[in-house]
Amino acid sequence: MSDNRESTAPDTVDVLLPWSGLDERHGPWPPNVRVHVWDGLSPEDELPPEVLGRVGLWVMPYAVPGAERLLPRLTRLRAVQSLSAGVEKLQPLLPEGVALHNGRGLHDSSTAEHALGLVLAAQRDLPQWVVDQHAGRWEPHFTRSLADCKVAVIGYGSIGAAVENRLLACEAEVVRVARRARPAEGVHPAEDLVRLLPDVDIAVLVLPETPATVGLLGKEELAALPDGALVVNVGRGRTLDTEALLAEVRNGRLRAALDVTDPEPLPADHPLRTAPGVLITPHVAGGSASFRPRAERLVVDQVHRFAAGAPLRNPFE
Amino acid sequence: MSDNRESTAPDTVDVLLPWSGLDERHGPWPPNVRVHVWDGLSPEDELPPEVLGRVGLWVMPYAVPGAERLLPRLTRLRAVQSLSAGVEKLQPLLPEGVALHNGRGLHDSSTAEHALGLVLAAQRDLPQWVVDQHAGRWEPHFTRSLADCKVAVIGYGSIGAAVENRLLACEAEVVRVARRARPAEGVHPAEDLVRLLPDVDIAVLVLPETPATVGLLGKEELAALPDGALVVNVGRGRTLDTEALLAEVRNGRLRAALDVTDPEPLPADHPLRTAPGVLITPHVAGGSASFRPRAERLVVDQVHRFAAGAPLRNPFE
Ligand SMILES: NC(=O)c1ccc[n+]([C@@H]2O[C@H](COP(=O)([O-])OP(=O)(O)OC[C@H]3O[C@@H](n4cnc5c(N)ncnc54)[C@H](OP(=O)(O)O)[C@@H]3O)[C@@H](O)[C@H]2O)c1
Ligand SMILES: NC(=O)c1ccc[n+]([C@@H]2O[C@H](COP(=O)([O-])OP(=O)(O)OC[C@H]3O[C@@H](n4cnc5c(N)ncnc54)[C@H](OP(=O)(O)O)[C@@H]3O)[C@@H](O)[C@H]2O)c1
Repeated sequence: MSDNRESTAPDTVDVLLPWSGLDERHGPWPPNVRVHVWDGLSPEDELPPEVLGRVGLWVMPYAVPGAERLLPRLTRLRAVQSLSAGVEKLQPLLPEGVALHNGRGLHDSSTAEHALGLVLAAQRDLPQWVVDQHAGRWEPHFTRSLADCKVAVIGYGSIGAAVENRLLACEAEVVRVARRARPAEGVHPAEDLVRLLPDVDIAVLVLPETPATVGLLGKEELAALPDGALVVNVGRGRTLDTEALLAEVRNGRLRAALDVTDPEPLPADHPLRTAPGVLITPHVAGGSASFRPRAERLVVDQVHRFAAGAPLRNPFE
Repeated sequence: MSDNRESTAPDTVDVLLPWSGLDERHGPWPPNVRVHVWDGLSPEDELPPEVLGRVGLWVMPYAVPGAERLLPRLTRLRAVQSLSAGVEKLQPLLPEGVALHNGRGLHDSSTAEHALGLVLAAQRDLPQWVVDQHAGRWEPHFTRSLADCKVAVIGYGSIGAAVENRLLACEAEVVRVARRARPAEGVHPAEDLVRLLPDVDIAVLVLPETPATVGLLGKEELAALPDGALVVNVGRGRTLDTEALLAEVRNGRLRAALDVTDPEPLPADHPLRTAPGVLITPHVAGGSASFRPRAERLVVDQVHRFAAGAPLRNPFE
């Protein structure tokens, strides 16, 4: 029976997924698919070697450091699906001929939602109310609003567009900034920042870390922002110059709400933690409940495509 | 000269406003309007009695307790514009024949924005991150999200609809609840609450205080909510049963984010302040920067209408 498996079912595919039970929520798998599960935490020895030798598509466990150690044992691998948006470090580890697919889009909702939460918390003085609640105070004051503000979304990509949707619903105005100008879409190039920023109440950074983005919001750009402006970062910590920001928040000229910092984790005694008008969250924008259902839908779709021999979504480069 | 003023300019109108300089921002007043200003804080004796005796439209200073003491001296008053949405307490003070207009709509943006801020802060654990920031901790964990949640907007009126817009942009689903069913709009009646709530992740209260709304979200309704659900109140404190809520949050079954409380101000030692999973802001939802420009636009429009003898907007009852 094991002899003629390949010849009688030449189109049977083996896929290795990080979760079981997807078919219960999303409908049955195609008949030619054999599903295997590895969560990245249990010992990989529990996976029979003959299964590992058959896996064609591997959906890697999300945010499990070291999961890539399985790669050398997946001898017939054809495609890898990562659930992260950034796969720059994974790519060089793949054998030639293995296609890499990333998790672009899966974190948009979660990350954009957190960016909005940071903006609202800062504009509406939520950190102050949290302190007052526990100090027994009831001292209302008028606050800033998000409505009517002009917000620069710096890194108008997948997440940036999701941030924009949420800002517009709050009656804010958006200025789109990306690498290159796209006049038809009203996207400004990064070179225009110093000209654009004096007119902006809030700058939201959603940039990847690349040689060109490190320090992109530096001393000169921060100086261009008007007094009282808010800087939000949900992209990568190093795209914002920490020392330049510290100088501007320490004297109360600018405010900041940061989900990503440089360095990260932010040391316990780092001056950003106690600077006035600074709110910090520990790189949690992407990690919320809305990730899993979006990831499951992508995985199910990719397995169906793989089983049908169709091109997969989200190819990396 | 003072003798023939009325006969030569029968259509001249006197209006008393809380702010000066509106014409600089919004264009000149109609030629037949005489504008007088009283901010509600300076002594009313500074207003000449003959001016008070001519005022036809009074735009009351916003949120200035006791401003209504001017009413008996406005002997030719025809219309009052309040900038508050709730004018139930003002109405009985007006002489017969004086039309009352309220600030319906002026606070929608500010209040809905704060409601969204409370929802996001609670779902994304912002109060925890604020504490961790100052305690020197960097301990990320997965959080809830707003996306994919089912949110009951209880009090689907002017502010409720503005809350809905913002929730939808965050990929949440909305269940509309008001006094009476409006099937064509998908609005459920309040009587259906106990049937609807088991299916809801978040309940946002935006109710006025009336005999019918006091305690509207009580023990039975709270018990109908699923474990872990979030209760948000930006309407009036007494529409939510504080004792019943306390019982549910103390044992960690429900969470809450409250801009309005019962009593208000909330005493320094009130158990809500320290109950787990409770976030409190001191009735600040309506009071943010976005109120003023909206209020100014209404006032300017009302003055133009009054000068032209046209019906005013926002009549109360
Ligand atoms: N905080 C978190 O938990 C979290 C979660 C997920 C993602 N992230 C971060 O967010 C980043 C953005 O994600 P995404 O999915 O939105 O990526 P994306 O769709 O690739 O968008 C990236 C945007 O950045 C712009 N950009 C790149 N280099 C630039 C430069 N030198 N100057 C100006 N703009 C530049 C791009 O401009 P063009 O459009 O002109 O190419 C694009 O608009 C990720 O790389 C990741 O680092 C953080
Ligand atoms: N926290 C703050 O700073 C702040 C700021 C502004 C306003 N507020 C409060 O928010 C309240 C709502 O303002 P709004 O401008 O949205 O008022 P609105 O347009 O009159 O809407 C009120 C809503 O409540 C519903 N409602 C009234 N009685 C009800 C009952 N017994 N059962 C169920 N639903 C009931 C109404 O239902 P129908 O549509 O069926 O009539 C309507 O949908 C105000 O009254 C004020 O107390 C608070």
